[in-house]
Amino acid sequence: MRFIHTSDWHLGRTLHNQSLLDEQAQMLETLLALIETHEVDALVIAGDIFDRSVPPAAAVSLLDAFLDKVIQQLKVSVIAIGGNHDGQERLAFGARQMARAGLYIQGPVSASISPVRVDGKHGAAFFYPIPYAEPALVRHLLEDESIQSHQDAMAALLSKVQAHNSNGLPKIVVSHCFLDGGSESDSERPLSIGGADKITPALFTPFDYAALGHLHGPQYKGAEHVRYSGSPLKYSFSEQHQNKSVTLVDMVPAKAPDIRLLPIKPQRDVRIIEGHLDTLLAQGAKDPGRDDYLMVRLLDTHAILEPMAKLRAVYPNVLHLERTGLMQERSMEGPGRERMQKSELTMFEDFFNQVQGESLSGPQKALMSDLIASLHREAGQ
Amino acid sequence: MRFIHTSDWHLGRTLHNQSLLDEQAQMLETLLALIETHEVDALVIAGDIFDRSVPPAAAVSLLDAFLDKVIQQLKVSVIAIGGNHDGQERLAFGARQMARAGLYIQGPVSASISPVRVDGKHGAAFFYPIPYAEPALVRHLLEDESIQSHQDAMAALLSKVQAHNSNGLPKIVVSHCFLDGGSESDSERPLSIGGADKITPALFTPFDYAALGHLHGPQYKGAEHVRYSGSPLKYSFSEQHQNKSVTLVDMVPAKAPDIRLLPIKPQRDVRIIEGHLDTLLAQGAKDPGRDDYLMVRLLDTHAILEPMAKLRAVYPNVLHLERTGLMQERSMEGPGRERMQKSELTMFEDFFNQVQGESLSGPQKALMSDLIASLHREAGQ
Repeated sequence: MRFIHTSDWHLGRTLHNQSLLDEQAQMLETLLALIETHEVDALVIAGDIFDRSVPPAAAVSLLDAFLDKVIQQLKVSVIAIGGNHDGQERLAFGARQMARAGLYIQGPVSASISPVRVDGKHGAAFFYPIPYAEPALVRHLLEDESIQSHQDAMAALLSKVQAHNSNGLPKIVVSHCFLDGGSESDSERPLSIGGADKITPALFTPFDYAALGHLHGPQYKGAEHVRYSGSPLKYSFSEQHQNKSVTLVDMVPAKAPDIRLLPIKPQRDVRIIEGHLDTLLAQGAKDPGRDDYLMVRLLDTHAILEPMAKLRAVYPNVLHLERTGLMQERSMEGPGRERMQKSELTMFEDFFNQVQGESLSGPQKALMSDLIASLHREAGQ
Repeated sequence: MRFIHTSDWHLGRTLHNQSLLDEQAQMLETLLALIETHEVDALVIAGDIFDRSVPPAAAVSLLDAFLDKVIQQLKVSVIAIGGNHDGQERLAFGARQMARAGLYIQGPVSASISPVRVDGKHGAAFFYPIPYAEPALVRHLLEDESIQSHQDAMAALLSKVQAHNSNGLPKIVVSHCFLDGGSESDSERPLSIGGADKITPALFTPFDYAALGHLHGPQYKGAEHVRYSGSPLKYSFSEQHQNKSVTLVDMVPAKAPDIRLLPIKPQRDVRIIEGHLDTLLAQGAKDPGRDDYLMVRLLDTHAILEPMAKLRAVYPNVLHLERTGLMQERSMEGPGRERMQKSELTMFEDFFNQVQGESLSGPQKALMSDLIASLHREAGQ
């Protein structure tokens, strides 16, 4: 059995109000090529396929077209589960009809598990799709009052997987959860408040492979075969240094699975650049990645007129701007009203300088200073 | 070929803020029994399956469970199209995977038609699903600038059906549109403003059967085989006298199809009752339909305290109340300020009477009359 494990596509997501649908379409093209090149038997998508329970219609069409190619053209089975971002009832519409074609979508969790046997060129295996579920739902479904936490719920569901007779075939669990010790990014939505969402990795180690979703950085916990594939795209600037990939897994009889990360190179990278405006503008001209989605941290300590427009003339996809220099400068100044006044006068001096091309004269500066002070008095500060 | 033609389910719809999901679930149970009893080869749903493009998750689950029973248990093929209420991209997710199981959902219209051949116990036939589409979309898809109206668009699409070689098998067109001369109810959403949405029935008469959706009353236009099944439930009080049904169709070689209407008896009827409050309350005690969804027209000409609460004590599902008597009484009175004043005093007298159990005394009445007059003066009327 050879399969690709991926998760957290978040189709339909935006980054600082920029739609990422083009990037996502290009990512799916790359994934399609990898599926073909590596002749996999199955594709596993471990939740958060869509970014929200009601995704944009264009995201629905994108997924539909992709799955059709995987299933009808490449004849590769797909096992997919709902994550905490997905609207599971919507995702699962028609799932029982699609199963016949080799598309196994597990929507809401049910009291019984639904093992999926896939017979591939590289051998057979059982997949056990366990969608994201609130502990209260699992407690209700299994009629087991002792289920209080995510840990309890997962233990109860996995005991059913344990009990299933796979006739010696590898058991691959597909789940969307938060393993204790896992590294978070800024783009995952917490499963619950206060840490009650964490599950010990030891629950998954008895199985031949655990294909997990939720955390956006690729990582394993407890054992190498208990893995997060991570998202195939960067969904926050905190992920700028993550190498995004999908995970290629070969089940090897009587041995640990063979695992390789297949890099996904995005159309546009998501990264942070830092420096003074003039330097950044000069560098941009020869930066092959100037189309990337950028957060810019400006180190300049003076006010700048329309810095976003100036940056976007060179870097068209600047999504967010931080005036790092200005904030540091201000935090070094004296506290209270005096600092505010000085800072406002300084900013106006910078502004006047840029617009008029000359400095404020002495009388002009005095007038402006009086004006700012009187405004503060009027505001009662 | 024997099939049931139905349309306009509007799953997830509310009637005067009352969810109809229970009624819809019960209607689908009835339909399931009819499909089984009449041993049909196919079920045709001619659009407006859901009431809106993003239906409630419970409506999605309801349809999913129903279709699974039809297809997997009864082994009956389903041909469904999107109507003007449906979100067609969402409806069509996974459609190509479901087709293998016998579930043919045609989402957005495409440049090519997709004939569906069904081989049933009662013979074979071709179905041609043509979902609802704006003329502009058809113009764009077919790259034909001459397409301006719904009529033009349908003619262009139907010419493709004409051209398709069915090897002598019956041609059944499935479409969601507004035929010229069709009778409307209050619950259809107009396809366009100003009547440019209408299509001549003659476009459909050349085919062996046209299974249409959009109009909520069962009817045929132009020829008996060009039919609206109508909705299986009443979705407005204007439909109170319609007999809701689904249409059973038997294709007969070299003859007109054999058509029968199969009544759908709702769990609760939707109807209007009219009378004086006391009479209606007395009748309600022995009314077997007192649980029906009711619009009540009260003929009483005096003000009544909390009429809705009084009615609902007997008829729990009164959804709408019209004070027909009060409105007639008022319209018969003199015009202008004098009428307003008289009416308000009369209403207060009724109110006082009901709350205190006695009439206003002469001085009380004079006081109230003065008060109303002074209020009108203050309001500048």
